[in-house]
Amino acid sequence: MKIIVTGGAGFLGTRLIKALLARAGQVEGLPAFESIVSVDLAPCAVDDPRVSSVTGNVSDPAFIRAAVTPDTVAVYHMAAVVSGQAEADFDLGMSVNLDGTRALLEACRALGTTPRFVFASSLAVFGGPMPEVVPEDLALLPQSSYGAQKAIGELLVGDYSRKGFIDGRVCRLPTIVVRPGKPNAAASSFASGIIREPLNGQASNCPVPPATRMWLSSPATVTDNLVHAIAVPGERLGGRRTLNLPGLCVTVAEMLASLERVGGPEARARVTEVPEQRIIDIVCSWPGDFDVSRPLALGFTRDGDFDAVVRQYKDEFIG
Amino acid sequence: MKIIVTGGAGFLGTRLIKALLARAGQVEGLPAFESIVSVDLAPCAVDDPRVSSVTGNVSDPAFIRAAVTPDTVAVYHMAAVVSGQAEADFDLGMSVNLDGTRALLEACRALGTTPRFVFASSLAVFGGPMPEVVPEDLALLPQSSYGAQKAIGELLVGDYSRKGFIDGRVCRLPTIVVRPGKPNAAASSFASGIIREPLNGQASNCPVPPATRMWLSSPATVTDNLVHAIAVPGERLGGRRTLNLPGLCVTVAEMLASLERVGGPEARARVTEVPEQRIIDIVCSWPGDFDVSRPLALGFTRDGDFDAVVRQYKDEFIG
Repeated sequence: MKIIVTGGAGFLGTRLIKALLARAGQVEGLPAFESIVSVDLAPCAVDDPRVSSVTGNVSDPAFIRAAVTPDTVAVYHMAAVVSGQAEADFDLGMSVNLDGTRALLEACRALGTTPRFVFASSLAVFGGPMPEVVPEDLALLPQSSYGAQKAIGELLVGDYSRKGFIDGRVCRLPTIVVRPGKPNAAASSFASGIIREPLNGQASNCPVPPATRMWLSSPATVTDNLVHAIAVPGERLGGRRTLNLPGLCVTVAEMLASLERVGGPEARARVTEVPEQRIIDIVCSWPGDFDVSRPLALGFTRDGDFDAVVRQYKDEFIG
Repeated sequence: MKIIVTGGAGFLGTRLIKALLARAGQVEGLPAFESIVSVDLAPCAVDDPRVSSVTGNVSDPAFIRAAVTPDTVAVYHMAAVVSGQAEADFDLGMSVNLDGTRALLEACRALGTTPRFVFASSLAVFGGPMPEVVPEDLALLPQSSYGAQKAIGELLVGDYSRKGFIDGRVCRLPTIVVRPGKPNAAASSFASGIIREPLNGQASNCPVPPATRMWLSSPATVTDNLVHAIAVPGERLGGRRTLNLPGLCVTVAEMLASLERVGGPEARARVTEVPEQRIIDIVCSWPGDFDVSRPLALGFTRDGDFDAVVRQYKDEFIG
């Protein structure tokens, strides 16, 4: 049996594949598997005999049908065109984020085996007036095409699950901080940049006001939660298949204070604060805090504090 | 300039076309038009030189592109595969209710003129635990594929409006009672049937418990509200393009009491009450009452009481 990870060549997909390999046979409820197949535009860099890559576009139904073979026991759908790019290129976002999700769901339905299916969604499904703490039953009001496409994916996963075509779980990921590497086209890219660049001796700009609340998770915690998401029994989720993964609610000012505590005043001094309206419009429409009592009761976890999140990056990538 | 009505051959579409013709030039904000084009599988029966029909499937992008000519000032998207049918034939529902809506939105976007666009949505977008009175910001949790497809349409109309591709308005219609003619495949078809058939001397079954609350609107009122929906300025709607149209909250028991008052005890005696689980599962997942303060402030209306709704049908179709 195999697990498919779309976006398996990406930062989070790669990390998830490594975690699945490391925990095979050790996590209660995790489906047994012999191999993991990464489905992405580029091959996955994980060097393990159990991992293989098929490369192509998830929005191509024939490609996806060929990848989702009858031995598929579970699918992680992580591939997406990110928020900034989906806003700049509407057709590309619709093609990958909507048509791609649909092609993958159809391929799973064609199996007739109700495979487990984890869909990575986003805070970008929210917008408009919002309570201080967002409850599970707040209406979605996306302020970006990316958010609308993710919200549509959530509805599809919900309906395919209700029909018994898949056993789906939607994980709305907090903003992941600190991502290693270079900035990307996500509107939230700065949230990693304002920690990562200064720790690497480089300048970085913070484009949103210091009081902006962010809902954050470290890469290690979000990976743990994605592994848990495929292991938790479907009947414990019931009819509400969408979960706001637990995160930390911190302001940008608090993030920069953590940077200063962990990286020193010289790191903090590398961050400029020039507002960028395009980023503010998207990121400041996202909620900063959630009621996550149900996901916590289901065994999902969150980071202890933001200093630890900064140290996690420093220890792993700077040493 | 022309107005397009998809589903223009249907009961509500036909009624809407007649109302638009009657009120041309008389309703503040109603876009000026010289013609109305019905887009449906069958031709529209309205006999007026200003009305023409093009027949075909809304899920065919080439057909829809040809219908949406540059003189299109407004579009009503009423065509849909109804709830019972979309549940029985998943692929048909996805094709018409999702792909058809998308094809129409793309054709409108291609105009580059931001036409007004009214999308008829449904209570079927709701489900799960619900407060007694549903607020505007309650999360959607569809319990049918029809509801999921309508919820996806709402998200698309919202995002196309935000991008300026259309000037969209989503009207979640109450259950329309009393529809004339024959029962259809909608799960809510009985709500008209238990009034219409007895008044016509025929038997009818009520498949849901007497205490079931329904959210109802007469054909005349919902038509008024659809005309108003295209006339209201987009800036008054702001970023929240979806409206729960005002309705009457009545129980099935109250509906049957109205039937008895208007049609006499012999009419009431023609209604049997044999539960049907397939209908209960869908209809009893819908909310029975809504906070409609915003739509009422925007000038939308509702019926006075249910006796008047029954009399409206009796006067128009039985006399």
